[in-house]
Order: sequence, then structure tokens, then C-alpha cells
Amino acid sequence: MSPGAGKRGGIDLGGTKIQAGIVGPRGKVYGEARRQTPTEGGPADVAREMAAALRDAAEQAGVDPASLQGVGVGSPGDVDERTGEVSEARNLPGWEGTFPLAKALSEDLGMEVRVGNDVQVATEAEFRLGAGKPYRTIIGVFWGTGVGGGLVLDGRPWLGRGAAGEIGHIVVKRNGARCTCGRKGCMEAYAGRAAMENEARREHDGGEKTDLFKLMRKHGRDRLTSGVWERALEHGDKLTEKLMDRAVEALGTGVASACNVLDPEAVILGGGMGVRFGESYSEPLRKEMLKHLFADDRPPALHVAALGDLGGAIGASLLFDE
Amino acid sequence: MSPGAGKRGGIDLGGTKIQAGIVGPRGKVYGEARRQTPTEGGPADVAREMAAALRDAAEQAGVDPASLQGVGVGSPGDVDERTGEVSEARNLPGWEGTFPLAKALSEDLGMEVRVGNDVQVATEAEFRLGAGKPYRTIIGVFWGTGVGGGLVLDGRPWLGRGAAGEIGHIVVKRNGARCTCGRKGCMEAYAGRAAMENEARREHDGGEKTDLFKLMRKHGRDRLTSGVWERALEHGDKLTEKLMDRAVEALGTGVASACNVLDPEAVILGGGMGVRFGESYSEPLRKEMLKHLFADDRPPALHVAALGDLGGAIGASLLFDE
Repeated sequence: MSPGAGKRGGIDLGGTKIQAGIVGPRGKVYGEARRQTPTEGGPADVAREMAAALRDAAEQAGVDPASLQGVGVGSPGDVDERTGEVSEARNLPGWEGTFPLAKALSEDLGMEVRVGNDVQVATEAEFRLGAGKPYRTIIGVFWGTGVGGGLVLDGRPWLGRGAAGEIGHIVVKRNGARCTCGRKGCMEAYAGRAAMENEARREHDGGEKTDLFKLMRKHGRDRLTSGVWERALEHGDKLTEKLMDRAVEALGTGVASACNVLDPEAVILGGGMGVRFGESYSEPLRKEMLKHLFADDRPPALHVAALGDLGGAIGASLLFDE
Repeated sequence: MSPGAGKRGGIDLGGTKIQAGIVGPRGKVYGEARRQTPTEGGPADVAREMAAALRDAAEQAGVDPASLQGVGVGSPGDVDERTGEVSEARNLPGWEGTFPLAKALSEDLGMEVRVGNDVQVATEAEFRLGAGKPYRTIIGVFWGTGVGGGLVLDGRPWLGRGAAGEIGHIVVKRNGARCTCGRKGCMEAYAGRAAMENEARREHDGGEKTDLFKLMRKHGRDRLTSGVWERALEHGDKLTEKLMDRAVEALGTGVASACNVLDPEAVILGGGMGVRFGESYSEPLRKEMLKHLFADDRPPALHVAALGDLGGAIGASLLFDE
């Protein structure tokens, strides 16, 4: 019996990093690796880096990649689960069109590759193996660069016509702040890490005092990562506190609106910002949600994603359970 | 064979009126009657008036009420479908607590009575017999005194934990207008007929010119019914136009947010205001929705409820199909 028997690869493709894992059938992680997402080139370059990350993870696990049952991918953009093609992944380099990601990776790695929506596979991972296990109906909220959402309704993933779960684009303020999607007043325009960074720059350029950018440079970053936000909070940076409060207000409002539509048992908060701040901001977030929840006598449970950063890769590997 | 064989009663219990119908298994209406909802007394008085409305409808249909297969009720408030109890129907007189509506009606009428949520049964009626027939997944939007919503997802009613579909309480503007529910910025706080009337009074009291209240009195009404709004529009009343535009903006924003969560095939617009203004305002509503729809290259279809005012009673009768 080959050491890879029953194991699958999982790759979470993000705008900043590629996270790969070698995962057992019940979600146990045998090896993992992380690479930076290329910021230049095109989809083929991204696919090559993904394959390399998977080989790194296999090596760490001591598993021959060829022995894996297959490789699942959680991808941003418009994913065709049937063909494995990904379109309009606008936070990835040169990916405005359609690219046959499953085919490219499959040829490189020599095995079957399946592709799913990144946020949806992470939600299903939390549902089956993480913080969502006790429930039948959850909303996954992935608070990172943007704000993504995934739905499991009565045990089944809900994709709508393919674009369900776009909770980052629930409107929280008509004619409000401009979102990266071009629209106005979306939850993401206040709560997304990228929007928060834009606002911090605007205020900083306008003369507002903040340590955010000093901390960013000190830690060798070229953007305000969740770690930079955390350090600035530890420093008692006023602008940071203000922008975090603003983000949590928007999150609470938008998530409550989604709950008013679906009345789920639980909300699972993941993503880079969600995993980092989920515990420390859970009370303010609950409070903001309660202001707008219609059934406020029995609010949904609120949990931080239990699989943390690896949830995306684990969820991707679960594409081979179906 | 008795003339009532296969026929059911359906009663739609609203804050203003009780609509009863005698309905065949495929939704054909054999008789109908309408009574004013009592504004004084308590749940037992309301139940008595409901039974009377049903007897009126049976008489119109030439059917012996005792021969009906049963009577379904669509009720506001918190409905327990299993027991037929209704709690906290706050737009009905003295109904803050819990009342055994199915039991009271069943004793009065001498037959089985089932109770469902008013908006949900109306949504299912549109799904099975009305404008939603071509689709598997719809959102029903009932624009009346308030704004209610019902969901059918992949052919199945979605109730969540009992309070799903509260789309009137999707937030469209953080810290916005005060809603009748006590919260701030709900869609209903701009689009509900009651909220529109409050705003019209405020503006009128503040010196704004309008024919709304003159038309109300002229037609013997004590509130701004959808008919009064329609006549004021025909008069070119400026305040009316302004408040209608404001309502449609809020509706478009909130419904788009719900669509961003669920990605449905169609939105069905019903309710007193929805049925009256759905056609004439469909283009402005579509336009407002498009501003906020994430998947704006394939917006959901938008239809006016095909069963009109009778949808609620027909939907209630369908409780005997299950």
C-alpha cells in the first residue's frame, strides 16, 4: 500500500498566498506548504506555483504525489465546477478571461484535479469538520481582503445559480462608500481589509496620525496585513481602533441582514481578519448583529472558524468526497 | 358526491382585511368573501370574523362548509404550523400573547384547520400556481403595510428556524430611518406603506404641500391605502412621487441584497402595493436592483404576483396538499 492511499491534495488559491495541504479522508493534515501567489505573469504561472506548493506539501508529508487520490482546489473568481475552468479571478494576475485550471494542474501533476469556489469549500470544511459540525444550517463569513460568504442549508451547499453567498456585497448603507466592485455601500467597502487600508491611507494622507504604515514598513510588508492591524491595535493606535470599529459595525449589519433572510443556526467567521480578530471582537460583533436581527430573542450562534488558515485547503480536498 | 368534495377553504388574515376563498385542488377559486379585520377585542373576535368570512365565501360558491376538505389559514405573527397556535401578531387587536387559532376555528367551523405563515403560503401559491411556476428558486416580496418575504429554494419552502424571509428588515441604511419594528434603517422603514404614510404626515405637518390626505378623506379612508397613493400619483402630487421613488429605491437595494445572498432565478412582487404598482414601477425597481446586484450580467427575473389579492387565501388552501 502506497503511503498516499486515501489521501488527497488540497490547494487554497488566494490573492496573496497559495496554501497547499495533504489531507486524509477525515480532514487530518499530513503535510502543508505555502507559497506567495505570483503578482505578475498569467494564469499558467499561477498554476505552476500551485503545483509546486502541492509538491512541497507532499514532500513534507513524505507522500509520493502520484499516489494521491486527487487534488482539490478552492479558487476565487467565477468557477465552473463541472469543467474546472476559472474566469474573471480579478485579484490574480492576467486572469480577466477564462483559464482551464483543472486541466493545467492535472497535466502538471499527473492526476485528477477538481476545482470549487474558495469560500464555498471553506464553508463546507467548517460544516463537516470544524465549528459548524453541530449545525445543519450555517452561513460562513470570510473576512479577509474582501468579505466572502458560503451557505450550507439543511446540510446541503447552496450555490444558487452559481453566485450565491456574496454577502460582502450586501448593502449596508445606500449611497455609501465606494466598493472595490464598483458599487456603493457594500459591506465589503467598510469591512474588507483592502477597503480598510484604502481608508487608512486616505485619512493618513489627510493628516490623521497613525502608526499603521510605520508598522507595515517595520515588518517588511507592502500592505496592511491582518498582522499589521493587530500590532497597531496593541499600540493603542486611534485610527486603527476607529477603522476596526467601523468594519465590525458594517459586518454586524450585513451579517444580520443575511440572517434575517435565512434564519441560520450559526454564523462561522473565518478569513485572515476573521481568524485573527474573531475572538477579541466577537462581543462587539454580536452586539452590532443584535441591533439588526429580527429574531433577536434567539440569535444564531457565532463561532470563529475552527480549521483556521487551513480550512480552505482542507475544504478543497473534500471535493473528492462527493 | 357533495358539492364541496375536493374543495378547501383558504383564509388570508391581514391587519386590514380578512380574505376568504373556496378553492379547488389546482387553485381554482369557486367563491370568495372579504371582511374587515376587527380593530378591537381580541384573538377570539378575530377568529369569529374569519369563520364568518369563510361561511360567506362558501355561500357564494354554493358549497356546504361542512363538506370542505379543510380550511387553511395564512396568518401574520409567529406561527406554529404544528399546533396551529399564533403568537405576537402585533398588527391584530390584543394578540400580544399566544392564541390557539386552529383549535378555535376548527371548533367554530367543525372541520380540520391548518395555519401557516401568511407570506410563506402566498409565496408557495405563486411558486406552484402563479408567476413563479417556471422556476425552482424564488424570493416572494410582499410590499404592503410592511414588507414581507417568502423563499422557495430548489422547489422547497425555506423557513430557517421559523423566521426566514424577513427581507423587510434587511438594513438598507445604517443608522437610517426608524422602523416600526423599533430598529433603524430597515428596508420597511422606507418602503412599507405604513412608514410611507408616517413620512407623508411628517412632511405635511412640516408644511409640505400634498393632496394625499385630501384624497384619503374624499374616498372615506382613514389611512393612505394603496388606492389613495395611486390617485395621488395620477394627480401628479410631488410629495407622493418623492415618497414612491424613495420606497422603490429602498426596495431595489434590499431585494438586491437578498439576491446577492441567494442568487434566485426570480423575484415575485406581491402585496397590496406590489400588485398595484408592480407593473408601473417595474423598470425603476429593476434599475435600482441592478445598482446593487453582484451578478448583474444575469439579474433574476422580476414578475408581479399573478394571483393578485387572492394569492394569500389560495396559498392557505394549499396547506391541505401536503
